[in-house]
Amino acid sequence: MLAYSGGLDTSVMIPWIREKYGMNVIAVLVDVGQKEDFESAVERAEKLGAVEVVKKDARSEFVKDYVFKAIKANSLYEGVYPMGTSLSRPLIASKIVEVAEEKGASTVAHGCTGKGNDQVRFEVSIRSLNPRLKILAPVREWGLSRDEEVKYLEKKGVEMDRGKSRFSIDDNLWSRSIEGGELEDPWVEPPEEAFVWSRPVPEAPDKPEYITLEFEKGVPVKLNGEKLNPVELILRVNMIAGSHGFGRIDHMEDRVVGIKSREVYEAPAALTLIKAHQDLEKLVLTRMELEEKRKIEATWAWLVYSGLWFEPLRRAVDAFIDCTQENVEGEVRIKLFKGEATVVGRRSGKSLYDEKKATYSSLSKFDQSLADGFIQLWGLSTVRANEVRSHES
Amino acid sequence: MLAYSGGLDTSVMIPWIREKYGMNVIAVLVDVGQKEDFESAVERAEKLGAVEVVKKDARSEFVKDYVFKAIKANSLYEGVYPMGTSLSRPLIASKIVEVAEEKGASTVAHGCTGKGNDQVRFEVSIRSLNPRLKILAPVREWGLSRDEEVKYLEKKGVEMDRGKSRFSIDDNLWSRSIEGGELEDPWVEPPEEAFVWSRPVPEAPDKPEYITLEFEKGVPVKLNGEKLNPVELILRVNMIAGSHGFGRIDHMEDRVVGIKSREVYEAPAALTLIKAHQDLEKLVLTRMELEEKRKIEATWAWLVYSGLWFEPLRRAVDAFIDCTQENVEGEVRIKLFKGEATVVGRRSGKSLYDEKKATYSSLSKFDQSLADGFIQLWGLSTVRANEVRSHES
Amino acid sequence: MLAYSGGLDTSVMIPWIREKYGMNVIAVLVDVGQKEDFESAVERAEKLGAVEVVKKDARSEFVKDYVFKAIKANSLYEGVYPMGTSLSRPLIASKIVEVAEEKGASTVAHGCTGKGNDQVRFEVSIRSLNPRLKILAPVREWGLSRDEEVKYLEKKGVEMDRGKSRFSIDDNLWSRSIEGGELEDPWVEPPEEAFVWSRPVPEAPDKPEYITLEFEKGVPVKLNGEKLNPVELILRVNMIAGSHGFGRIDHMEDRVVGIKSREVYEAPAALTLIKAHQDLEKLVLTRMELEEKRKIEATWAWLVYSGLWFEPLRRAVDAFIDCTQENVEGEVRIKLFKGEATVVGRRSGKSLYDEKKATYSSLSKFDQSLADGFIQLWGLSTVRANEVRSHES
Amino acid sequence: MLAYSGGLDTSVMIPWIREKYGMNVIAVLVDVGQKEDFESAVERAEKLGAVEVVKKDARSEFVKDYVFKAIKANSLYEGVYPMGTSLSRPLIASKIVEVAEEKGASTVAHGCTGKGNDQVRFEVSIRSLNPRLKILAPVREWGLSRDEEVKYLEKKGVEMDRGKSRFSIDDNLWSRSIEGGELEDPWVEPPEEAFVWSRPVPEAPDKPEYITLEFEKGVPVKLNGEKLNPVELILRVNMIAGSHGFGRIDHMEDRVVGIKSREVYEAPAALTLIKAHQDLEKLVLTRMELEEKRKIEATWAWLVYSGLWFEPLRRAVDAFIDCTQENVEGEVRIKLFKGEATVVGRRSGKSLYDEKKATYSSLSKFDQSLADGFIQLWGLSTVRANEVRSHES
Repeated sequence: MLAYSGGLDTSVMIPWIREKYGMNVIAVLVDVGQKEDFESAVERAEKLGAVEVVKKDARSEFVKDYVFKAIKANSLYEGVYPMGTSLSRPLIASKIVEVAEEKGASTVAHGCTGKGNDQVRFEVSIRSLNPRLKILAPVREWGLSRDEEVKYLEKKGVEMDRGKSRFSIDDNLWSRSIEGGELEDPWVEPPEEAFVWSRPVPEAPDKPEYITLEFEKGVPVKLNGEKLNPVELILRVNMIAGSHGFGRIDHMEDRVVGIKSREVYEAPAALTLIKAHQDLEKLVLTRMELEEKRKIEATWAWLVYSGLWFEPLRRAVDAFIDCTQENVEGEVRIKLFKGEATVVGRRSGKSLYDEKKATYSSLSKFDQSLADGFIQLWGLSTVRANEVRSHES
Repeated sequence: MLAYSGGLDTSVMIPWIREKYGMNVIAVLVDVGQKEDFESAVERAEKLGAVEVVKKDARSEFVKDYVFKAIKANSLYEGVYPMGTSLSRPLIASKIVEVAEEKGASTVAHGCTGKGNDQVRFEVSIRSLNPRLKILAPVREWGLSRDEEVKYLEKKGVEMDRGKSRFSIDDNLWSRSIEGGELEDPWVEPPEEAFVWSRPVPEAPDKPEYITLEFEKGVPVKLNGEKLNPVELILRVNMIAGSHGFGRIDHMEDRVVGIKSREVYEAPAALTLIKAHQDLEKLVLTRMELEEKRKIEATWAWLVYSGLWFEPLRRAVDAFIDCTQENVEGEVRIKLFKGEATVVGRRSGKSLYDEKKATYSSLSKFDQSLADGFIQLWGLSTVRANEVRSHES
Repeated sequence: MLAYSGGLDTSVMIPWIREKYGMNVIAVLVDVGQKEDFESAVERAEKLGAVEVVKKDARSEFVKDYVFKAIKANSLYEGVYPMGTSLSRPLIASKIVEVAEEKGASTVAHGCTGKGNDQVRFEVSIRSLNPRLKILAPVREWGLSRDEEVKYLEKKGVEMDRGKSRFSIDDNLWSRSIEGGELEDPWVEPPEEAFVWSRPVPEAPDKPEYITLEFEKGVPVKLNGEKLNPVELILRVNMIAGSHGFGRIDHMEDRVVGIKSREVYEAPAALTLIKAHQDLEKLVLTRMELEEKRKIEATWAWLVYSGLWFEPLRRAVDAFIDCTQENVEGEVRIKLFKGEATVVGRRSGKSLYDEKKATYSSLSKFDQSLADGFIQLWGLSTVRANEVRSHES
Repeated sequence: MLAYSGGLDTSVMIPWIREKYGMNVIAVLVDVGQKEDFESAVERAEKLGAVEVVKKDARSEFVKDYVFKAIKANSLYEGVYPMGTSLSRPLIASKIVEVAEEKGASTVAHGCTGKGNDQVRFEVSIRSLNPRLKILAPVREWGLSRDEEVKYLEKKGVEMDRGKSRFSIDDNLWSRSIEGGELEDPWVEPPEEAFVWSRPVPEAPDKPEYITLEFEKGVPVKLNGEKLNPVELILRVNMIAGSHGFGRIDHMEDRVVGIKSREVYEAPAALTLIKAHQDLEKLVLTRMELEEKRKIEATWAWLVYSGLWFEPLRRAVDAFIDCTQENVEGEVRIKLFKGEATVVGRRSGKSLYDEKKATYSSLSKFDQSLADGFIQLWGLSTVRANEVRSHES
């Protein structure tokens, strides 16, 4: 059972596993919205000797059970990365385990290297779902260069260029990762050609575009008043925000295996939707809900980033988050212009601000004593500590 | 002893306090970089009957002892507000207490309303520094409208227009707050005229500008290779970043007194410097340092925002932060363009990434076993829990 | 509507409120397991002029909806206090609001002083449930000494001694608070007569007693194999643990109003049950669940202690906790002896330890490589940081 | 360079390493207060062919640089374990690296198994101090049973019994770990013979003993008024508390390698000193200092437990803690009786409670308005949220 992506590495694995381990290979190809020519990928797998090629369209499941949880969790690893890749791994793993159990397979193979996060995500997910499946990670074993891989495939009668791009790409409908080449020098600015979802700012329209996103129970349901299915909504926001040049990320990232790396991403829809969601939450959640949720969001992001989607703690964190999202409903107005998405308006039937004037004026009657009492008790222990201790700056 | 800002409210207080409480008023005017005609403010105070007007230039102290701590703490209240006003209050309070002690004053007055944060910041700070000083908050008592205030001053022979702007402004060299008018409707986009530090995006230059910031021990020391004193550095970055339209903030904010409000700010330098600092930290701090620091930063921001600058906990948090900043040195390259500031490069002699290739390749030799061992133990308890418990999605 | 406890303060209030405010008083007496002669309390209220006395037995509700949540949250404020009083206040408030709405009352009165936590708990709870009810806190107004209160009652024809004890007591079935007298000096050891639930250690049996507690979904269901209703179970554990001298607490506590106080409590059942629950959790929850739960438990305790039972954040925290408690089932064996309760055994069908030997031995096969790989990657960034930075001790 | 403990495993290693790897072995024996016959251990190492045996007395350094930090951090892993073993490992590692550098050794060997925490602590510490040293972990390689080890030594002419105890012990002056045998069943009560530092409760004196501990800057300096050096102070408290049967720990513990285990410890001094220290802190630190410190203490404990003593985050956490400890001074009175240590009194020149009556009475004058104002603003957003949202239980 091979987690087949259609790329060079997993293509090589089809004959390689058969030759080295004498096992029949079933290739499983899971569609989570990546740009991929699925038809020729299936063809290639068959040509390379896969006894069966299973293709699953998991886009809708990906959005509903993974991406929507990420939106509710305002999920940005280390403050910036919306974790498209991280979110897709446990889903792909679960599809593969599903097929493996159906077909009675004993072993699962994946195409991850030994230096990255994905191996952790795949393997912990697979073992959590079915600890009896054996796991094979050929890339950690074989030590082939990309040129050798291309040649190996040629011998098997399959032409596969090394990719036109000097970058290594992983994408799905939530984010696109760009790695390799000059990006490995964190002092060098990422070149324009690294990006395909977000237009260069100078080419972006000279007029701002306003969009309105409507949320219910913490997830987006309408774009500009139009109800859309989840996959469609994300694709459209990605297109619109990208067309204004919004959605690029460039930072130093800490991998779970203890290595720092420079990572470059594009995620116009993810960044737009999370920004809108965060803004709306500030209108409808109490300060205490917001403060605690921010802390627990960091836990969520770390669990998912570090491969622990199936850690029971993640479910408890989601229970917390879901409880807060009961009241996250309303509209957010966003201005897209020249590389930036700015929230310029928000409103909600659950607004904790809305009737404030009333609150304000009724408050006005007793301002004096209320404020004075509050301040005196709020500062009481601080004042006392300064009195007792010798003064320190 | 009056914390005199030069504005309408505190101008009215000078005669009002004498009339109502029969006390002599010493006006203290502290310069923390606000746009203010100090000369005419001093004149006005004297004309209104202040027995003495003391003006203090605290800009350099403000930057070194408050703003630099805020940079090291990546201090953004609720993720967005750099807290210029919050940071200045304890400094102004300390100057006033200093003068009050010099002059033997018994009472300190401030011009804050009963609904905001500033009253908390002033009063807790003053009491922490000198619990024997009495505090007067006339605005919480008098119930005068702005028109009545203008008329009252006229009777005292002082002409003071209500301000051309329909907005209420508080500014210093770290940030500028804009309140009131239509901004109180969170669904309405802030109009261009609310902003003065940041140019409208369409008028921003059509070419990006790159700047380089150099940090030592967590604080900026050079701009484009030129060593600048702290105040000058901030002013210049504010000018440059603002000229590209960067630095606007618009969000729903939770005040310490339990009220939500829509707040609009400008802070080109603050946002640029914090962005650069956060980025550099990711290059030179370990993942664990970053993770714990992010949590403690939220504590720092809440303490300072909520008026507890003198809470001893703030000093302990600063001790933590200062320890991490020993190693935060290096350069950050920022691209300013059409309303956005983007970090496009970072480098440091303390980089934890720099020699990575070496680390990587030496790692390569034993990838297979290392990664496998790590993943198995990293996921061990998660896998075990999934085995024991009935499977839950 | 008066939150009537039967004590001196709230007895005085019945005639006092009528005289001062000209209102009819309905006294509501809520049974949460306190030691109280309810019959004579009702009689006294009637004699003092209450137009109606309503008595509610809320013990079962108290345990199921408040105490059980506290057990699941291992709820100990500042690490030691099980919060019996804190937990009962929102329940009493909700009963009173319920009756107030039934009877169409406009105003609610309580007997708390202006220095404590209970006023906060009552008033925030009442306002959260019905913000239209006016609140009266006569003790904060009247300034009567206890002697004057006794005399006032005498004039109304009611004899009430000041209480034999020199201590002020608040109790319910979860804990008993002892305040006042020499306890206010934190250097003085609490005298034996302060305690009534826990026997002095020298008088405790010379033989240990073992009990077994069985938990389901995080709450105790059986004692020594016998299924008991929740109230009964707590009463019995209280008796048994107290008879061995276990259950005393003495510490410096931080009140929500900013004051430190020395607090002395008895809570044999609460401490025994929480100890057992904590121990069982370590058997059935993953390390990550335990770590995050410990943090969120502190939030829960602070919310409940500080009067914010109805803060929506509490519900989200409970959602997190309830999710973890799905798997908290099993038995805990406790040895009670000479003032101490010690967990000496634990077992569970959901144990994450149970089949360890198997896990252990299968692990043994690849120990070498697994451990080595784990350690190298676990320490990688720490080692790197030490390499890059000049060595610091 | 062998981290030689004098035990069976590391004795076997001396000839084994020479035979297997052809290296000369220098045995380093570090005294951190363990019960060990150092003389015969040295003799044995020489007899087994060590080219040199280095013995270091590190007890004083252990207390001052490790144990005292642990006291200041109230360090209890998972709430109960004072981490004697965890604390000693980085110290032993640093001594060994020191000697290795002196002697020009290339390789360091330790006696830890592949299932425990100690291998992580040793290896990460050694690599952090000197990444060029190679590390050997023979126990993870050789697969010898204890019987085979005894026989192997016999062949080398050394008699070594398997230990009279069926338990495996690790001890130093801070704690004593007892593992193995029937303790591996968490349902079985640890037998009396597992314990040697703490007397059985029935044999403990029938009269309580009171001791007074004085702290300065967070560390104990006097016992019953007598100034003692740190090592002596700990030894004496251990003796006294142990003689009253206090100091036993029994819980389920989560190892860093992902395994749960049942752990039994004795630590009379550690538990007494930490209890006293925690109690004193409540007298002299503000609520906010206490709350944040509790969170960061958990971080400290996890870092040290999981082998990351040299992680730079630990230093930042210590900077935070040290800052709070400036004010932790005063006396704590403890009653030791029948298996329990109870704090019964505390006092300090830095007490935040001490002058409370004054504070109280001055507060009394304006109680009414202060409390009312505080409560209204404290609960404002909670009340508002309950108003806006449909009521949820």
